[in-house]
Amino acid sequence: MIIGSGPAGLEAALNLKIRQKDFLLFGAADLSNKITLAPRINNYLGLPGISGGDLAARFREHLEQMAIEIVPEQVTTVYPMGEYFSLATAHRTLEATTVILCPGVFNSKDLPGEAEFLGRGVGYCATCDAPLYRDRTVAIVGYTDESVEEANFVCDVAVKVYFVPGKAFTRPLDSRVEVVDDVPVEITGSGKVEQLILNNRTLAVDGVFLLRETIAPASLVPGLETENGFIKVDAAMQTNLPGCYAAGDCTGKPHQYMRAAGQGQTAALNAAAYIDIQKHTHAE
Amino acid sequence: MIIGSGPAGLEAALNLKIRQKDFLLFGAADLSNKITLAPRINNYLGLPGISGGDLAARFREHLEQMAIEIVPEQVTTVYPMGEYFSLATAHRTLEATTVILCPGVFNSKDLPGEAEFLGRGVGYCATCDAPLYRDRTVAIVGYTDESVEEANFVCDVAVKVYFVPGKAFTRPLDSRVEVVDDVPVEITGSGKVEQLILNNRTLAVDGVFLLRETIAPASLVPGLETENGFIKVDAAMQTNLPGCYAAGDCTGKPHQYMRAAGQGQTAALNAAAYIDIQKHTHAE
Repeated sequence: MIIGSGPAGLEAALNLKIRQKDFLLFGAADLSNKITLAPRINNYLGLPGISGGDLAARFREHLEQMAIEIVPEQVTTVYPMGEYFSLATAHRTLEATTVILCPGVFNSKDLPGEAEFLGRGVGYCATCDAPLYRDRTVAIVGYTDESVEEANFVCDVAVKVYFVPGKAFTRPLDSRVEVVDDVPVEITGSGKVEQLILNNRTLAVDGVFLLRETIAPASLVPGLETENGFIKVDAAMQTNLPGCYAAGDCTGKPHQYMRAAGQGQTAALNAAAYIDIQKHTHAE
Repeated sequence: MIIGSGPAGLEAALNLKIRQKDFLLFGAADLSNKITLAPRINNYLGLPGISGGDLAARFREHLEQMAIEIVPEQVTTVYPMGEYFSLATAHRTLEATTVILCPGVFNSKDLPGEAEFLGRGVGYCATCDAPLYRDRTVAIVGYTDESVEEANFVCDVAVKVYFVPGKAFTRPLDSRVEVVDDVPVEITGSGKVEQLILNNRTLAVDGVFLLRETIAPASLVPGLETENGFIKVDAAMQTNLPGCYAAGDCTGKPHQYMRAAGQGQTAALNAAAYIDIQKHTHAE
């Protein structure tokens, strides 16, 4: 499973395809916005002075020619299960022998209390965890376009849903949802979430969902080792979790396309070798 | 100084150019032969199904557009001098604040005795070290096209020059040079070179020059740390020598263009940052 459709994720996909591995490439169907919006790029060897839009078009063309499709679902959790990984999106759970993390840079800062209450009232996928909040009160802090749908979904289960929009939203919100135009400051509680403190108001809640474009790596993969906010990898792009690789901006600086793509390739080829060894071991 | 004109060296050059650093890019004027001869390449993101020849042409076009020229001299030694590096080619010595090693894979095996007698009769640049062999006897093992010129040059200084061709040669050899069509087996001596042992003959010599397309990294840069034949680097592509970076196939596997280019970029941007810090420190 490749998580992320920047240069690292795409280059990883090309290499897994060539090695004839089964894989899913999760990401934005229109690729990373960051690429498309980039001005002229002079340091992508072989494509002098290309614009971000043209580079993205060439990436899409490369995927098409190799018959690689992007799965436009957000992976919200990756659980290391020992010999495999269990991944959750809003719509399903999946299993994988190896995972390649290419989520890009995680820009947002943790909300105070977020890490402390992760799994004890704090979550990143409202639709996944909705059943836990039957007849309870939930706040959804929505930084993504899909946040509205998640709030609407939870409405059918929870007794009360607050929606704190992190960005302007245009999609229709269920009338049962209470919109709170305020800024989250802290999540508090005793052992589990009890309050979402906003700038001007405090909401008494049982759960808080933070719906961001990217999820902090350590929150995405429990037990993943990070260093200064970046995923720690060795020269083979392997993380501290066997079978879990990382590539691109998430592993450190400089944040550049060529570096990201090169790391994606290294991660993919080592992941392919890891799969072959696993298969061999199981066959014996 | 960038040593090597494979994808790692070229991508390093692009990035140093953009950062407006003064640099020289040493390598083959027609780029690496290995690229040109590569069959269809499917994993160079953005250039689906490109042939090696076309990719090399695009690389050359990129260099032209950025006004980057390749210096077609072989760097034979890089001496770490503390705050700077001293580099030797057959024609000159140069100084550099940082060095980026992108020599590719070193395929040839060391000749027995080569490492032991390096600097004590064994050398990699006959024209550089010729003055040391005035009125003495020298053997030149020539694996490169330029070996003939080196042998001719040494003729004017040494009392006797043997030429052991490692490959067929067509260029005119000085009549004073004795061609020995044989295979080198070992270099021996007591404290310094005394014999070059060949399959069928032993030459009594004071010096042996091994003229290969690529020089083993540890021979090229005294004190450079290697591991399993590859140059040891950290995530910033820095070697054990401050200011000395390495990128591409010389740092390990997988041996792939994208990985090499990505590492070249990382090395260049970190080298640029290193130069800025050095300047700042000296200015204070």
